[in-house]
Amino acid sequence: MSGRDETPWPHVTLVLGGARSGKSRHAEALVRAAGPAPWTYVATAEAWDDEMRARIAHHRAERAASGGGGWVTVDAPLDPGGALLAAPAESPVLVDCLTLWLTNLMLGGHDVDAASEVFFAALSARRGPVVLVANEVGLGIVPENALARAFRDAAGRLNQRIAARAGRVLFIVAGLPIVVK
Amino acid sequence: MSGRDETPWPHVTLVLGGARSGKSRHAEALVRAAGPAPWTYVATAEAWDDEMRARIAHHRAERAASGGGGWVTVDAPLDPGGALLAAPAESPVLVDCLTLWLTNLMLGGHDVDAASEVFFAALSARRGPVVLVANEVGLGIVPENALARAFRDAAGRLNQRIAARAGRVLFIVAGLPIVVK
Amino acid sequence: MSGRDETPWPHVTLVLGGARSGKSRHAEALVRAAGPAPWTYVATAEAWDDEMRARIAHHRAERAASGGGGWVTVDAPLDPGGALLAAPAESPVLVDCLTLWLTNLMLGGHDVDAASEVFFAALSARRGPVVLVANEVGLGIVPENALARAFRDAAGRLNQRIAARAGRVLFIVAGLPIVVK
Repeated sequence: MSGRDETPWPHVTLVLGGARSGKSRHAEALVRAAGPAPWTYVATAEAWDDEMRARIAHHRAERAASGGGGWVTVDAPLDPGGALLAAPAESPVLVDCLTLWLTNLMLGGHDVDAASEVFFAALSARRGPVVLVANEVGLGIVPENALARAFRDAAGRLNQRIAARAGRVLFIVAGLPIVVK
Repeated sequence: MSGRDETPWPHVTLVLGGARSGKSRHAEALVRAAGPAPWTYVATAEAWDDEMRARIAHHRAERAASGGGGWVTVDAPLDPGGALLAAPAESPVLVDCLTLWLTNLMLGGHDVDAASEVFFAALSARRGPVVLVANEVGLGIVPENALARAFRDAAGRLNQRIAARAGRVLFIVAGLPIVVK
Repeated sequence: MSGRDETPWPHVTLVLGGARSGKSRHAEALVRAAGPAPWTYVATAEAWDDEMRARIAHHRAERAASGGGGWVTVDAPLDPGGALLAAPAESPVLVDCLTLWLTNLMLGGHDVDAASEVFFAALSARRGPVVLVANEVGLGIVPENALARAFRDAAGRLNQRIAARAGRVLFIVAGLPIVVK
Protein backbone atom coordinates (compact mmCIF):
# COMPACT_ATOMS: atom_id res chain seq x y z
CA MET A 1 0.00 0.00 0.00
CA SER A 2 3.02 2.30 -0.37
CA GLY A 3 2.27 5.69 -1.85
CA ARG A 4 -1.32 5.64 -0.63
CA ASP A 5 -2.51 8.56 1.42
CA GLU A 6 -3.02 7.19 4.90
CA THR A 7 -3.31 10.42 6.89
CA PRO A 8 -5.75 10.13 9.78
CA TRP A 9 -9.24 11.60 9.84
CA PRO A 10 -9.72 12.89 13.40
CA HIS A 11 -13.00 14.55 12.36
CA VAL A 12 -14.52 11.25 11.21
CA THR A 13 -16.61 8.84 13.31
CA LEU A 14 -17.41 5.37 11.99
CA VAL A 15 -20.60 3.84 13.41
CA LEU A 16 -20.69 0.08 12.77
CA GLY A 17 -23.46 -2.33 13.59
CA GLY A 18 -25.80 -5.02 12.39
CA ALA A 19 -29.20 -4.73 10.78
CA ARG A 20 -31.70 -2.99 13.10
CA SER A 21 -29.01 -2.39 15.68
CA GLY A 22 -29.98 1.26 16.05
CA LYS A 23 -26.83 2.49 14.33
CA SER A 24 -28.59 5.15 12.22
CA ARG A 25 -30.38 6.59 15.20
CA HIS A 26 -27.17 6.68 17.22
CA ALA A 27 -25.30 8.30 14.32
CA GLU A 28 -28.01 10.94 13.93
CA ALA A 29 -27.70 11.85 17.61
CA LEU A 30 -23.92 12.19 17.21
CA VAL A 31 -24.38 14.54 14.26
CA ARG A 32 -26.91 16.70 16.09
CA ALA A 33 -24.49 16.89 19.04
CA ALA A 34 -21.56 17.80 16.77
CA GLY A 35 -22.82 21.24 15.83
CA PRO A 36 -25.86 23.39 15.04
CA ALA A 37 -28.26 22.74 12.15
CA PRO A 38 -28.37 22.49 9.22
CA TRP A 39 -27.19 18.89 9.32
CA THR A 40 -26.56 17.26 5.97
CA TYR A 41 -27.87 13.73 5.53
CA VAL A 42 -26.12 12.01 2.61
CA ALA A 43 -28.41 9.11 1.68
CA THR A 44 -26.96 6.27 -0.37
CA ALA A 45 -30.13 4.15 -0.38
CA GLU A 46 -31.93 3.64 -3.67
CA ALA A 47 -35.65 2.88 -3.60
CA TRP A 48 -35.55 -0.07 -6.01
CA ASP A 49 -38.45 -1.94 -4.39
CA ASP A 50 -41.29 -1.48 -1.92
CA GLU A 51 -39.35 -2.88 1.04
CA MET A 52 -36.54 -0.38 0.45
CA ARG A 53 -39.01 2.45 -0.05
CA ALA A 54 -40.58 1.60 3.32
CA ARG A 55 -37.17 1.57 5.02
CA ILE A 56 -36.22 4.93 3.53
CA ALA A 57 -39.54 6.49 4.56
CA HIS A 58 -39.16 5.07 8.07
CA HIS A 59 -35.68 6.56 8.49
CA ARG A 60 -36.82 9.90 7.06
CA ALA A 61 -39.74 10.07 9.49
CA GLU A 62 -37.44 9.27 12.41
CA ARG A 63 -35.08 12.09 11.40
CA ALA A 64 -37.92 14.56 11.07
CA ALA A 65 -39.25 13.52 14.48
CA SER A 66 -35.91 13.91 16.24
CA GLY A 67 -34.30 16.82 14.37
CA GLY A 68 -37.22 18.96 13.34
CA GLY A 69 -36.47 20.86 10.16
CA GLY A 70 -32.73 20.78 10.74
CA TRP A 71 -31.89 17.98 8.29
CA VAL A 72 -31.07 18.55 4.62
CA THR A 73 -31.21 15.27 2.69
CA VAL A 74 -28.95 14.75 -0.33
CA ASP A 75 -29.31 11.58 -2.39
CA ALA A 76 -25.92 10.23 -3.44
CA PRO A 77 -26.17 6.52 -4.24
CA LEU A 78 -22.84 6.43 -6.13
CA ASP A 79 -20.85 9.51 -5.10
CA PRO A 80 -21.21 10.32 -1.39
CA GLY A 81 -17.80 12.03 -1.61
CA GLY A 82 -19.19 14.61 -4.02
CA ALA A 83 -22.07 15.25 -1.63
CA LEU A 84 -19.61 15.67 1.24
CA LEU A 85 -17.67 18.31 -0.65
CA ALA A 86 -20.86 20.16 -1.63
CA ALA A 87 -22.16 20.37 1.95
CA PRO A 88 -21.81 23.69 3.83
CA ALA A 89 -18.27 24.00 5.20
CA GLU A 90 -17.83 23.06 8.89
CA SER A 91 -21.40 21.79 9.20
CA PRO A 92 -21.95 18.24 10.48
CA VAL A 93 -22.59 15.58 7.86
CA LEU A 94 -23.99 12.07 8.15
CA VAL A 95 -23.40 9.45 5.42
CA ASP A 96 -25.89 6.58 5.77
CA CYS A 97 -24.72 4.11 4.77
CA LEU A 98 -21.45 2.92 3.27
CA THR A 99 -22.64 -0.65 2.85
CA LEU A 100 -25.52 0.38 0.59
CA TRP A 101 -23.12 2.57 -1.36
CA LEU A 102 -20.88 -0.47 -1.85
CA THR A 103 -23.92 -2.48 -2.94
CA ASN A 104 -24.75 0.18 -5.52
CA LEU A 105 -21.16 0.21 -6.81
CA MET A 106 -20.95 -3.57 -7.12
CA LEU A 107 -24.40 -4.07 -8.65
CA GLY A 108 -23.67 -1.28 -11.13
CA GLY A 109 -20.33 -2.79 -12.13
CA HIS A 110 -18.32 0.22 -10.95
CA ASP A 111 -14.65 0.11 -9.90
CA VAL A 112 -14.86 -0.12 -6.11
CA ASP A 113 -11.22 0.74 -5.49
CA ALA A 114 -11.32 3.83 -7.68
CA ALA A 115 -14.59 5.01 -6.10
CA SER A 116 -13.14 4.40 -2.64
CA GLU A 117 -10.15 6.60 -3.39
CA VAL A 118 -12.44 9.44 -4.51
CA PHE A 119 -14.48 9.08 -1.33
CA PHE A 120 -11.38 8.92 0.87
CA ALA A 121 -10.00 12.07 -0.78
CA ALA A 122 -13.25 13.87 0.04
CA LEU A 123 -12.99 12.73 3.68
CA SER A 124 -9.42 14.07 3.79
CA ALA A 125 -10.48 17.41 2.30
CA ARG A 126 -13.43 17.91 4.63
CA ARG A 127 -12.94 19.89 7.86
CA GLY A 128 -16.29 19.65 9.63
CA PRO A 129 -17.44 16.58 11.56
CA VAL A 130 -18.49 13.56 9.51
CA VAL A 131 -20.30 10.51 10.83
CA LEU A 132 -20.26 7.40 8.63
CA VAL A 133 -22.66 4.51 9.13
CA ALA A 134 -21.71 1.01 7.95
CA ASN A 135 -23.00 -2.51 8.41
CA GLU A 136 -20.97 -5.32 9.88
CA VAL A 137 -21.97 -8.33 7.76
CA GLY A 138 -19.22 -10.88 8.38
CA LEU A 139 -20.33 -12.49 11.64
CA GLY A 140 -22.68 -15.11 10.26
CA ILE A 141 -22.09 -18.43 8.60
CA VAL A 142 -20.24 -18.36 5.23
CA PRO A 143 -22.86 -17.53 2.55
CA GLU A 144 -23.41 -20.21 -0.08
CA ASN A 145 -23.74 -17.52 -2.77
CA ALA A 146 -20.37 -16.48 -4.29
CA LEU A 147 -21.54 -12.91 -4.91
CA ALA A 148 -22.56 -12.62 -1.25
CA ARG A 149 -19.09 -13.82 -0.22
CA ALA A 150 -17.43 -11.29 -2.52
CA PHE A 151 -19.67 -8.55 -1.12
CA ARG A 152 -18.89 -9.57 2.44
CA ASP A 153 -15.18 -9.39 1.69
CA ALA A 154 -15.47 -5.97 0.06
CA ALA A 155 -17.56 -4.60 2.93
CA GLY A 156 -15.12 -5.89 5.52
CA ARG A 157 -12.16 -4.43 3.64
CA LEU A 158 -13.86 -1.04 3.31
CA ASN A 159 -14.76 -0.95 7.01
CA GLN A 160 -11.18 -1.82 7.97
CA ARG A 161 -9.67 0.88 5.77
CA ILE A 162 -11.97 3.55 7.20
CA ALA A 163 -11.65 2.38 10.80
CA ALA A 164 -7.85 2.58 10.54
CA ARG A 165 -8.02 6.31 9.78
CA ALA A 166 -11.17 7.43 11.63
CA GLY A 167 -10.81 9.33 14.88
CA ARG A 168 -13.55 7.34 16.56
CA VAL A 169 -15.10 3.92 15.88
CA LEU A 170 -18.25 2.66 17.61
CA PHE A 171 -19.83 -0.78 17.42
CA ILE A 172 -23.55 -0.60 18.15
CA VAL A 173 -25.33 -3.46 19.90
CA ALA A 174 -29.07 -3.17 20.57
CA GLY A 175 -28.89 0.60 20.21
CA LEU A 176 -25.98 1.00 22.63
CA PRO A 177 -22.39 1.87 21.66
CA ILE A 178 -19.28 -0.15 22.39
CA VAL A 179 -16.32 2.19 21.95
CA VAL A 180 -13.78 0.39 19.75
CA LYS A 181 -11.51 3.40 19.18
CA MET B 1 -43.69 6.97 20.74
CA SER B 2 -45.29 9.62 22.97
CA GLY B 3 -47.51 8.25 25.69
CA ARG B 4 -45.60 5.00 25.90
CA ASP B 5 -44.32 3.91 29.27
CA GLU B 6 -40.55 4.21 29.06
CA THR B 7 -39.62 3.99 32.75
CA PRO B 8 -36.34 2.21 33.32
CA TRP B 9 -35.97 -1.36 34.58
CA PRO B 10 -32.97 -1.29 36.91
CA HIS B 11 -33.73 -4.86 38.03
CA VAL B 12 -33.46 -6.22 34.47
CA THR B 13 -30.32 -7.58 32.77
CA LEU B 14 -30.30 -8.25 29.03
CA VAL B 15 -27.84 -10.92 27.90
CA LEU B 16 -27.26 -10.75 24.14
CA GLY B 17 -25.16 -13.03 22.01
CA GLY B 18 -24.94 -15.26 18.98
CA ALA B 19 -25.80 -18.92 18.62
CA ARG B 20 -23.67 -21.10 20.91
CA SER B 21 -22.04 -18.04 22.40
CA GLY B 22 -22.59 -19.31 25.94
CA LYS B 23 -25.24 -16.68 26.67
CA SER B 24 -27.64 -19.09 28.43
CA ARG B 25 -24.91 -20.45 30.68
CA HIS B 26 -23.76 -16.93 31.55
CA ALA B 27 -27.35 -15.83 32.23
CA GLU B 28 -27.95 -18.82 34.50
CA ALA B 29 -24.89 -17.92 36.55
CA LEU B 30 -26.16 -14.33 36.88
CA VAL B 31 -29.52 -15.58 38.15
CA ARG B 32 -27.94 -17.95 40.68
CA ALA B 33 -25.78 -15.05 41.90
CA ALA B 34 -28.78 -12.70 42.14
CA GLY B 35 -30.43 -14.48 45.06
CA PRO B 36 -31.18 -17.81 46.71
CA ALA B 37 -33.14 -20.65 45.09
CA PRO B 38 -35.75 -21.30 43.88
CA TRP B 39 -34.82 -19.74 40.56
CA THR B 40 -37.57 -19.60 37.96
CA TYR B 41 -36.62 -20.58 34.43
CA VAL B 42 -39.16 -19.24 31.93
CA ALA B 43 -38.65 -21.35 28.81
CA THR B 44 -39.99 -20.02 25.52
CA ALA B 45 -38.68 -22.89 23.37
CA GLU B 46 -41.18 -25.23 21.77
CA ALA B 47 -40.06 -28.76 20.92
CA TRP B 48 -41.43 -28.84 17.38
CA ASP B 49 -38.72 -31.14 15.99
CA ASP B 50 -35.98 -33.50 17.12
CA GLU B 51 -33.23 -30.89 16.82
CA MET B 52 -35.14 -28.53 19.09
CA ARG B 53 -35.95 -31.32 21.55
CA ALA B 54 -32.23 -32.12 21.75
CA ARG B 55 -31.35 -28.47 22.39
CA ILE B 56 -33.96 -28.17 25.13
CA ALA B 57 -32.78 -31.39 26.81
CA HIS B 58 -29.18 -30.21 26.60
CA HIS B 59 -29.98 -26.88 28.30
CA ARG B 60 -32.10 -28.62 30.95
CA ALA B 61 -29.26 -31.03 31.77
CA GLU B 62 -26.81 -28.14 32.05
CA ARG B 63 -29.11 -26.33 34.49
CA ALA B 64 -29.56 -29.43 36.61
CA ALA B 65 -25.80 -29.96 36.67
CA SER B 66 -25.00 -26.41 37.73
CA GLY B 67 -27.94 -25.50 39.92
CA GLY B 68 -28.94 -28.76 41.53
CA GLY B 69 -32.63 -28.85 42.32
CA GLY B 70 -32.88 -25.07 42.57
CA TRP B 71 -34.49 -24.42 39.18
CA VAL B 72 -38.23 -24.40 38.57
CA THR B 73 -38.99 -24.56 34.84
CA VAL B 74 -42.10 -22.86 33.46
CA ASP B 75 -42.99 -23.28 29.79
CA ALA B 76 -44.27 -20.04 28.32
CA PRO B 77 -43.85 -20.02 24.55
CA LEU B 78 -46.29 -17.14 24.00
CA ASP B 79 -46.70 -15.33 27.32
CA PRO B 80 -43.43 -15.05 29.26
CA GLY B 81 -44.87 -11.95 30.94
CA GLY B 82 -47.60 -14.04 32.56
CA ALA B 83 -44.96 -16.47 33.83
CA LEU B 84 -42.96 -13.54 35.23
CA LEU B 85 -45.95 -12.31 37.20
CA ALA B 86 -46.72 -15.80 38.52
CA ALA B 87 -43.18 -16.43 39.81
CA PRO B 88 -42.54 -16.07 43.56
CA ALA B 89 -42.12 -12.38 44.43
CA GLU B 90 -38.53 -11.15 44.77
CA SER B 91 -37.08 -14.45 43.50
CA PRO B 92 -34.67 -14.35 40.54
CA VAL B 93 -36.15 -15.18 37.14
CA LEU B 94 -34.50 -16.11 33.85
CA VAL B 95 -36.36 -15.77 30.54
CA ASP B 96 -34.64 -17.84 27.82
CA CYS B 97 -35.07 -16.61 25.22
CA LEU B 98 -36.79 -13.59 23.74
CA THR B 99 -35.82 -14.46 20.19
CA LEU B 100 -37.60 -17.81 20.31
CA TRP B 101 -40.61 -16.09 21.87
CA LEU B 102 -40.61 -13.67 18.91
CA THR B 103 -40.37 -16.63 16.54
CA ASN B 104 -43.39 -18.22 18.21
CA LEU B 105 -45.36 -14.98 17.96
CA MET B 106 -44.54 -14.41 14.29
CA LEU B 107 -45.05 -18.02 13.18
CA GLY B 108 -48.36 -18.09 15.06
CA GLY B 109 -49.57 -14.87 13.45
CA HIS B 110 -49.83 -13.00 16.75
CA ASP B 111 -49.61 -9.20 17.13
CA VAL B 112 -45.97 -8.66 18.13
CA ASP B 113 -46.45 -5.06 19.29
CA ALA B 114 -49.40 -5.93 21.52
CA ALA B 115 -47.60 -8.95 22.99
CA SER B 116 -44.51 -6.79 23.59
CA GLU B 117 -46.53 -4.25 25.55
CA VAL B 118 -47.93 -7.01 27.79
CA PHE B 119 -44.43 -8.35 28.39
CA PHE B 120 -43.02 -4.88 29.07
CA ALA B 121 -45.81 -4.19 31.58
CA ALA B 122 -44.88 -7.40 33.41
CA LEU B 123 -41.23 -6.32 33.51
CA SER B 124 -42.31 -2.97 34.96
CA ALA B 125 -44.48 -4.63 37.60
CA ARG B 126 -41.85 -7.14 38.70
CA ARG B 127 -39.58 -6.25 41.65
CA GLY B 128 -37.12 -9.15 41.83
CA PRO B 129 -34.12 -9.57 39.50
CA VAL B 130 -34.89 -10.66 35.93
CA VAL B 131 -32.33 -11.84 33.39
CA LEU B 132 -33.43 -11.88 29.76
CA VAL B 133 -31.57 -13.83 27.08
CA ALA B 134 -31.80 -12.76 23.43
CA ASN B 135 -30.03 -13.55 20.18
CA GLU B 136 -28.25 -10.98 18.09
CA VAL B 137 -29.08 -12.05 14.52
CA GLY B 138 -28.31 -8.99 12.42
CA LEU B 139 -24.55 -9.28 11.90
CA GLY B 140 -24.53 -11.58 8.88
CA ILE B 141 -25.19 -10.94 5.23
CA VAL B 142 -28.74 -9.81 4.29
CA PRO B 143 -30.93 -12.95 4.11
CA GLU B 144 -32.43 -13.71 0.69
CA ASN B 145 -35.65 -14.80 2.38
CA ALA B 146 -38.12 -11.92 3.01
CA LEU B 147 -39.53 -13.56 6.15
CA ALA B 148 -36.00 -13.89 7.55
CA ARG B 149 -35.42 -10.19 6.88
CA ALA B 150 -38.69 -9.28 8.62
CA PHE B 151 -37.75 -11.48 11.57
CA ARG B 152 -34.30 -9.92 11.76
CA ASP B 153 -35.85 -6.47 11.85
CA ALA B 154 -38.33 -7.43 14.55
CA ALA B 155 -35.64 -9.08 16.69
CA GLY B 156 -33.37 -6.05 16.41
CA ARG B 157 -36.19 -3.70 17.30
CA LEU B 158 -37.18 -5.77 20.33
CA ASN B 159 -33.58 -5.95 21.57
CA GLN B 160 -33.19 -2.17 21.22
CA ARG B 161 -36.38 -1.42 23.12
CA ILE B 162 -35.38 -3.67 26.01
CA ALA B 163 -31.75 -2.53 26.06
CA ALA B 164 -32.86 1.09 26.33
CA ARG B 165 -34.68 0.38 29.60
CA ALA B 166 -32.62 -2.46 31.12
CA GLY B 167 -30.26 -1.69 33.98
CA ARG B 168 -27.50 -3.82 32.51
CA VAL B 169 -26.74 -5.10 29.00
CA LEU B 170 -24.08 -7.71 28.23
CA PHE B 171 -22.86 -8.91 24.85
CA ILE B 172 -21.46 -12.44 25.11
CA VAL B 173 -18.59 -13.54 22.88
CA ALA B 174 -17.25 -17.11 23.23
CA GLY B 175 -18.77 -17.38 26.70
CA LEU B 176 -17.27 -14.11 27.97
CA PRO B 177 -19.22 -10.89 28.62
CA ILE B 178 -18.57 -7.51 27.07
CA VAL B 179 -20.32 -4.94 29.25
CA VAL B 180 -22.37 -2.71 26.95
CA LYS B 181 -24.29 -0.92 29.71
CA MET C 1 -17.05 -32.27 32.29
CA SER C 2 -15.47 -33.72 35.47
CA GLY C 3 -12.06 -35.29 34.96
CA ARG C 4 -11.26 -33.05 32.01
CA ASP C 5 -8.05 -31.07 32.13
CA GLU C 6 -9.16 -27.44 32.50
CA THR C 7 -5.86 -25.82 33.52
CA PRO C 8 -5.50 -22.33 32.11
CA TRP C 9 -3.32 -21.36 29.17
CA PRO C 10 -1.83 -17.98 30.12
CA HIS C 11 0.46 -18.13 27.06
CA VAL C 12 -2.49 -18.41 24.64
CA THR C 13 -4.31 -15.53 22.94
CA LEU C 14 -7.58 -16.15 21.10
CA VAL C 15 -8.33 -13.67 18.31
CA LEU C 16 -12.00 -13.84 17.29
CA GLY C 17 -13.71 -11.96 14.52
CA GLY C 18 -15.88 -12.08 11.45
CA ALA C 19 -14.94 -12.61 7.84
CA ARG C 20 -12.61 -9.86 6.60
CA SER C 21 -12.51 -8.30 10.03
CA GLY C 22 -8.70 -8.02 9.94
CA LYS C 23 -8.27 -10.76 12.56
CA SER C 24 -5.39 -12.50 10.76
CA ARG C 25 -3.47 -9.28 10.32
CA HIS C 26 -3.98 -8.36 13.96
CA ALA C 27 -2.93 -11.85 15.08
CA GLU C 28 0.22 -11.69 12.95
CA ALA C 29 1.19 -8.40 14.58
CA LEU C 30 0.67 -9.96 18.04
CA VAL C 31 2.95 -12.87 17.12
CA ARG C 32 5.69 -10.59 15.76
CA ALA C 33 5.48 -8.55 18.98
CA ALA C 34 5.62 -11.68 21.15
CA GLY C 35 9.23 -12.56 20.35
CA PRO C 36 11.93 -12.60 17.68
CA ALA C 37 11.71 -14.53 14.40
CA PRO C 38 11.35 -17.25 13.29
CA TRP C 39 7.60 -17.15 13.74
CA THR C 40 5.73 -20.34 12.94
CA TYR C 41 2.56 -19.99 10.92
CA VAL C 42 0.38 -23.08 11.27
CA ALA C 43 -1.98 -22.96 8.29
CA THR C 44 -5.15 -25.03 8.45
CA ALA C 45 -6.54 -23.86 5.11
CA GLU C 46 -6.80 -26.35 2.28
CA ALA C 47 -6.75 -25.04 -1.29
CA TRP C 48 -9.73 -27.02 -2.54
CA ASP C 49 -10.89 -24.41 -5.05
CA ASP C 50 -9.69 -21.26 -6.81
CA GLU C 51 -11.36 -18.91 -4.33
CA MET C 52 -9.56 -20.61 -1.44
CA ARG C 53 -6.28 -20.61 -3.35
CA ALA C 54 -6.64 -16.87 -3.88
CA ARG C 55 -7.35 -16.28 -0.17
CA ILE C 56 -4.33 -18.34 0.86
CA ALA C 57 -2.04 -16.54 -1.61
CA HIS C 58 -3.37 -13.17 -0.38
CA HIS C 59 -2.64 -13.99 3.28
CA ARG C 60 0.81 -15.36 2.38
CA ALA C 61 1.70 -12.18 0.49
CA GLU C 62 0.55 -10.04 3.41
CA ARG C 63 2.74 -12.03 5.83
CA ALA C 64 5.77 -11.75 3.54
CA ALA C 65 5.19 -7.99 3.20
CA SER C 66 4.92 -7.39 6.94
CA GLY C 67 7.31 -9.97 8.38
CA GLY C 68 10.02 -10.27 5.77
CA GLY C 69 11.58 -13.71 5.78
CA GLY C 70 10.69 -14.29 9.43
CA TRP C 71 7.69 -16.58 8.88
CA VAL C 72 7.92 -20.35 8.56
CA THR C 73 4.68 -21.80 7.19
CA VAL C 74 3.55 -25.28 8.21
CA ASP C 75 0.44 -26.81 6.62
CA ALA C 76 -1.63 -28.68 9.16
CA PRO C 77 -5.24 -28.98 7.98
CA LEU C 78 -6.11 -31.76 10.43
CA ASP C 79 -3.48 -31.72 13.19
CA PRO C 80 -2.47 -28.21 14.23
CA GLY C 81 -1.54 -29.64 17.64
CA GLY C 82 1.19 -31.74 16.05
CA ALA C 83 2.53 -28.67 14.28
CA LEU C 84 2.49 -26.76 17.58
CA LEU C 85 4.60 -29.43 19.27
CA ALA C 86 7.04 -29.58 16.34
CA ALA C 87 7.68 -25.80 16.31
CA PRO C 88 10.91 -24.48 17.88
CA ALA C 89 10.53 -24.32 21.67
CA GLU C 90 9.67 -20.88 23.10
CA SER C 91 9.19 -19.34 19.62
CA PRO C 92 5.90 -17.58 18.85
CA VAL C 93 3.33 -19.57 16.91
CA LEU C 94 0.22 -18.51 15.04
CA VAL C 95 -2.58 -20.97 14.23
CA ASP C 96 -4.83 -19.59 11.46
CA CYS C 97 -7.54 -20.61 11.77
CA LEU C 98 -9.46 -22.91 14.09
CA THR C 99 -12.71 -22.56 12.16
CA LEU C 100 -11.18 -23.92 8.95
CA TRP C 101 -9.63 -26.74 10.96
CA LEU C 102 -13.09 -27.57 12.31
CA THR C 103 -14.44 -27.47 8.75
CA ASN C 104 -11.76 -29.93 7.66
CA LEU C 105 -12.57 -32.24 10.57
CA MET C 106 -16.32 -32.20 9.94
CA LEU C 107 -16.13 -32.53 6.15
CA GLY C 108 -13.66 -35.41 6.57
CA GLY C 109 -15.88 -37.22 9.05
CA HIS C 110 -13.34 -37.04 11.88
CA ASP C 111 -14.19 -37.15 15.59
CA VAL C 112 -14.22 -33.46 16.58
CA ASP C 113 -14.13 -34.10 20.34
CA ALA C 114 -11.18 -36.47 20.11
CA ALA C 115 -9.27 -34.12 17.81
CA SER C 116 -10.03 -31.21 20.16
CA GLU C 117 -8.56 -33.08 23.13
CA VAL C 118 -5.34 -33.73 21.16
CA PHE C 119 -5.11 -30.06 20.24
CA PHE C 120 -5.85 -28.92 23.80
CA ALA C 121 -3.13 -31.23 25.14
CA ALA C 122 -0.65 -29.64 22.73
CA LEU C 123 -1.67 -26.17 23.93
CA SER C 124 -1.13 -27.30 27.52
CA ALA C 125 2.29 -28.73 26.70
CA ARG C 126 3.54 -25.70 24.80
CA ARG C 127 5.49 -23.01 26.68
CA GLY C 128 6.04 -20.26 24.09
CA PRO C 129 3.35 -17.75 23.06
CA VAL C 130 0.55 -19.06 20.87
CA VAL C 131 -1.99 -16.92 19.02
CA LEU C 132 -5.12 -18.68 17.77
CA VAL C 133 -7.41 -17.17 15.15
CA ALA C 134 -11.07 -18.20 14.97
CA ASN C 135 -14.21 -17.00 13.25
CA GLU C 136 -17.32 -15.92 15.07
CA VAL C 137 -20.12 -17.31 12.88
CA GLY C 138 -23.18 -17.28 15.14
CA LEU C 139 -24.38 -13.68 14.84
CA GLY C 140 -26.49 -13.99 11.70
CA ILE C 141 -29.92 -15.40 11.11
CA VAL C 142 -30.37 -19.15 11.76
CA PRO C 143 -29.11 -20.98 8.62
CA GLU C 144 -31.74 -23.03 6.76
CA ASN C 145 -29.15 -25.75 6.13
CA ALA C 146 -28.90 -28.33 8.97
CA LEU C 147 -25.20 -28.93 8.34
CA ALA C 148 -24.55 -25.20 8.63
CA ARG C 149 -26.42 -25.14 11.95
CA ALA C 150 -24.39 -28.10 13.23
CA PHE C 151 -21.18 -26.40 12.13
CA ARG C 152 -22.21 -23.15 13.80
CA ASP C 153 -22.87 -25.02 17.04
CA ALA C 154 -19.53 -26.84 16.90
CA ALA C 155 -17.63 -23.63 16.13
CA GLY C 156 -19.30 -21.78 18.99
CA ARG C 157 -18.59 -24.60 21.42
CA LEU C 158 -14.92 -24.78 20.38
CA ASN C 159 -14.51 -21.01 20.75
CA GLN C 160 -16.08 -21.10 24.23
CA ARG C 161 -13.86 -23.92 25.44
CA ILE C 162 -10.71 -22.16 24.26
CA ALA C 163 -11.78 -18.73 25.49
CA ALA C 164 -12.41 -20.15 28.97
CA ARG C 165 -8.76 -21.22 29.28
CA ALA C 166 -6.90 -18.63 27.15
CA GLY C 167 -4.99 -15.85 28.91
CA ARG C 168 -6.29 -13.23 26.52
CA VAL C 169 -9.33 -13.02 24.21
CA LEU C 170 -9.82 -10.29 21.61
CA PHE C 171 -12.85 -9.62 19.42
CA ILE C 172 -11.83 -7.81 16.23
CA VAL C 173 -14.18 -5.31 14.59
CA ALA C 174 -13.06 -3.56 11.39
CA GLY C 175 -9.43 -4.36 12.16
CA LEU C 176 -9.58 -3.00 15.72
CA PRO C 177 -9.52 -5.11 18.89
CA ILE C 178 -12.14 -5.14 21.64
CA VAL C 179 -10.51 -6.72 24.70
CA VAL C 180 -12.89 -9.40 26.00
CA LYS C 181 -10.47 -10.94 28.50
